[in-house]
Amino acid sequence: MEVIFVTSNEGKYREVRAIGKKYGINVGWMRMEYFEPQGNDLEEIAKISAELLSEKFQSPFFIEDSGLFIDSLNGFPGPYSSYVFKTIGNEGILKLMKDVEDRSAHFLAVVAYWDGEKVHTFSGRVDGRITDEMRGCEGFGYDPIFEYEGRTFAEMGEEKNEYSHRRKAIEKLFSWLSER
Amino acid sequence: MEVIFVTSNEGKYREVRAIGKKYGINVGWMRMEYFEPQGNDLEEIAKISAELLSEKFQSPFFIEDSGLFIDSLNGFPGPYSSYVFKTIGNEGILKLMKDVEDRSAHFLAVVAYWDGEKVHTFSGRVDGRITDEMRGCEGFGYDPIFEYEGRTFAEMGEEKNEYSHRRKAIEKLFSWLSER
Repeated sequence: MEVIFVTSNEGKYREVRAIGKKYGINVGWMRMEYFEPQGNDLEEIAKISAELLSEKFQSPFFIEDSGLFIDSLNGFPGPYSSYVFKTIGNEGILKLMKDVEDRSAHFLAVVAYWDGEKVHTFSGRVDGRITDEMRGCEGFGYDPIFEYEGRTFAEMGEEKNEYSHRRKAIEKLFSWLSER
Repeated sequence: MEVIFVTSNEGKYREVRAIGKKYGINVGWMRMEYFEPQGNDLEEIAKISAELLSEKFQSPFFIEDSGLFIDSLNGFPGPYSSYVFKTIGNEGILKLMKDVEDRSAHFLAVVAYWDGEKVHTFSGRVDGRITDEMRGCEGFGYDPIFEYEGRTFAEMGEEKNEYSHRRKAIEKLFSWLSER
């Protein structure tokens, strides 16, 4: 079985292709940017993006979107995690969280799969907390400030993939595809 | 002459209607939310939003989008100013700017007008700086932390409208419409 992953991010593609192998699914790569609407709801954003993108595709495909949601900041940076990382970065998040007691946060990933007729969404979530300073050198994005069971994602290396929100969402899709 | 302003914000509509009177332009109000794409470029966002919205309209209309761009934060909060205000607010911006020397910032407004065939954009900008603390009780949004020539927009009351980015963009549109 083959299915196309539409993403401009090579790192994401490699991670997802490796997961596919476990399920006997061959993941193809369509490297492109696509149109995403503004909004507060990551699942809704992914669903609309996939629907708009489906006008350009004949065969089934999926996209993935993810974000970091910090409780004491009302969910910020949420759906705009990528823009916020590019502008204020981890330094900005740590500054915002200075002297804040409630440091709980979660990563959320949503996968939207177009089966040729309609969109199906699958989500994965991992709960953790924001650290007081950056720790670890692996991974990317908010990994150095997101702590899960005592270590940051950037301190875990490959092991992070076992717990990651993206893996959970992708595995839900692949396991659903396998059972069809 | 009549033209429709599509916005869910009553305050914006009132401000714009008053400007229209000076130009002999009757501004009608279509109160609705519309679809906006994600992106880094406010003008591009407004243009695409108006193009998508034009599928629903027979007659000419315009929309307006604006944002606060802080130099030392790489333009943050920029196109996502509204989301950022709702989540971290002025307190968050001031925390991010604590001990930051370069406090220069600008407000940018873009108006996108659909003439029945294509979209025309007009922009207005006002340069100022981010204060060290909130000052003034009038206006809304980032007005209490945006200082222009010694006073914040929230300390100016009605006078703010004389210098505002929104007024500049709207006047460009109305003056262009009057000359057509």
